[in-house]
Amino acid sequence: MRGGLGADETGQPVRALRNIRLTVAFDGTAYSGWQIQKGQPTVQGELAAAVRRITGENVVPAASGRTDAGAHARAIGVGLQVRSGIAPASLLRALNSVLPRDIRVTGAWEAAPDFHPRRSAHSKTYRYNIYRGPVLPPHLVREYFHYPYQLDLSRVDAAVGRFVGEHDFGSFAARSGADKQDGPRGTVRRIFRADVQRSGHRLWFTFTGDGFLHHMVRNMVGTALEVGRGAMSADEFEALFSHRDRTKAGFTAPAHGLVLLRVHYRRR
Amino acid sequence: MRGGLGADETGQPVRALRNIRLTVAFDGTAYSGWQIQKGQPTVQGELAAAVRRITGENVVPAASGRTDAGAHARAIGVGLQVRSGIAPASLLRALNSVLPRDIRVTGAWEAAPDFHPRRSAHSKTYRYNIYRGPVLPPHLVREYFHYPYQLDLSRVDAAVGRFVGEHDFGSFAARSGADKQDGPRGTVRRIFRADVQRSGHRLWFTFTGDGFLHHMVRNMVGTALEVGRGAMSADEFEALFSHRDRTKAGFTAPAHGLVLLRVHYRRR
Repeated sequence: MRGGLGADETGQPVRALRNIRLTVAFDGTAYSGWQIQKGQPTVQGELAAAVRRITGENVVPAASGRTDAGAHARAIGVGLQVRSGIAPASLLRALNSVLPRDIRVTGAWEAAPDFHPRRSAHSKTYRYNIYRGPVLPPHLVREYFHYPYQLDLSRVDAAVGRFVGEHDFGSFAARSGADKQDGPRGTVRRIFRADVQRSGHRLWFTFTGDGFLHHMVRNMVGTALEVGRGAMSADEFEALFSHRDRTKAGFTAPAHGLVLLRVHYRRR
Repeated sequence: MRGGLGADETGQPVRALRNIRLTVAFDGTAYSGWQIQKGQPTVQGELAAAVRRITGENVVPAASGRTDAGAHARAIGVGLQVRSGIAPASLLRALNSVLPRDIRVTGAWEAAPDFHPRRSAHSKTYRYNIYRGPVLPPHLVREYFHYPYQLDLSRVDAAVGRFVGEHDFGSFAARSGADKQDGPRGTVRRIFRADVQRSGHRLWFTFTGDGFLHHMVRNMVGTALEVGRGAMSADEFEALFSHRDRTKAGFTAPAHGLVLLRVHYRRR
């Protein structure tokens, strides 16, 4: 009865819940991440407030995953359940007219009843941006980690390539989040793509995988940088894949260099 | 006696004035342009305050030219006259340690006594950024003009190519600034390069010329867009080069899409 009309106890017509899928882009600089937290500006909070203004409904938008405070997204996957009959394209325009300009709805579709932005995703792609020149240019301040140190880029390449495949990434998971991540797969994840591209002083790390543990991309990047500057040997790096010990991996690269590029769905 | 020591009336040693050349990059979003204005945040004002903090001297930094409120620069040319003996590389680091992070000194050199950041420049390169997709992504908000309208790009190309060469650009000059621009050359300028590149929804206009009148780049872009969307005919466009009449040209594209990429000097 999706989209159909019933009636409540007072005889008023009641619409059934519709499942709407959105893609949302945001500059995370001003936000404490995706997830609603009391007294903090969050992307989920801004989006819930925008939906309330447009349809009058109190919804808790679901996302493909949480994002760290200060990290960015080009296209996070979002699911909304609303009773309003508004067309997806009209909802997109209406939400963008009330959202702050550092959050934009870039796509909206009617979704299947069983669509869920996290469970229906089969993979995600992240990019991590680094600037190696002596002075970080102002137009890169929000999305680039400034790392003006000597690096052996062939060692960085080799380390990043080692992440491809199915591995236990326990050494690269934030300790604080470990309890939430021990589902049936524990800390095992599959990485389909991991590479580094460069242009001038810029380095772009790209990772596509079927799932990422809390802080995993930032820890992989920090560890690859330590290998690249010679602070971690190839043997020490290799041992991270057999021993789950977060204390042995490299530093956690800062959140502002991290961009969720895309969430890949089997279908809309 | 550049860099040498003299003595003032009280016998204190007095250094001769040194001429320092800087290149400065800034995100202009928060500034009322380059030039100091009472009660407004300006790039020149921030730089003067930073020099005062570092060397104790009251200087008025000179630039290769003024920039519009909200426009950006990757490398504006700046000249400083200081008595301090600080080495250019140390001055660069010291200024960056006190400047806001949306203004960065990216280069510093000892300059010849006759170097002047405007008079010594032989040309400048500007870029103007446009985004044509339906929703402007948050990471482009500061530097891209959102123009989601139908355009015949071959007409835009042809119009932009017409700017190359020596022409009277009076039709493309801001009327308010005309009195200041009528030097020996009047409103004649030479454009060495003018083209449009595209990638996906983005358009980048690039202009290199020996000088630009007030608002000239923004007026050239606005006019090319009007030609591209069919609001101005090829004949009307052509007439702008023979009649100096600002009221006949297209709209002034907004400042935030404009980036001064580089100022070209004959020598350092």
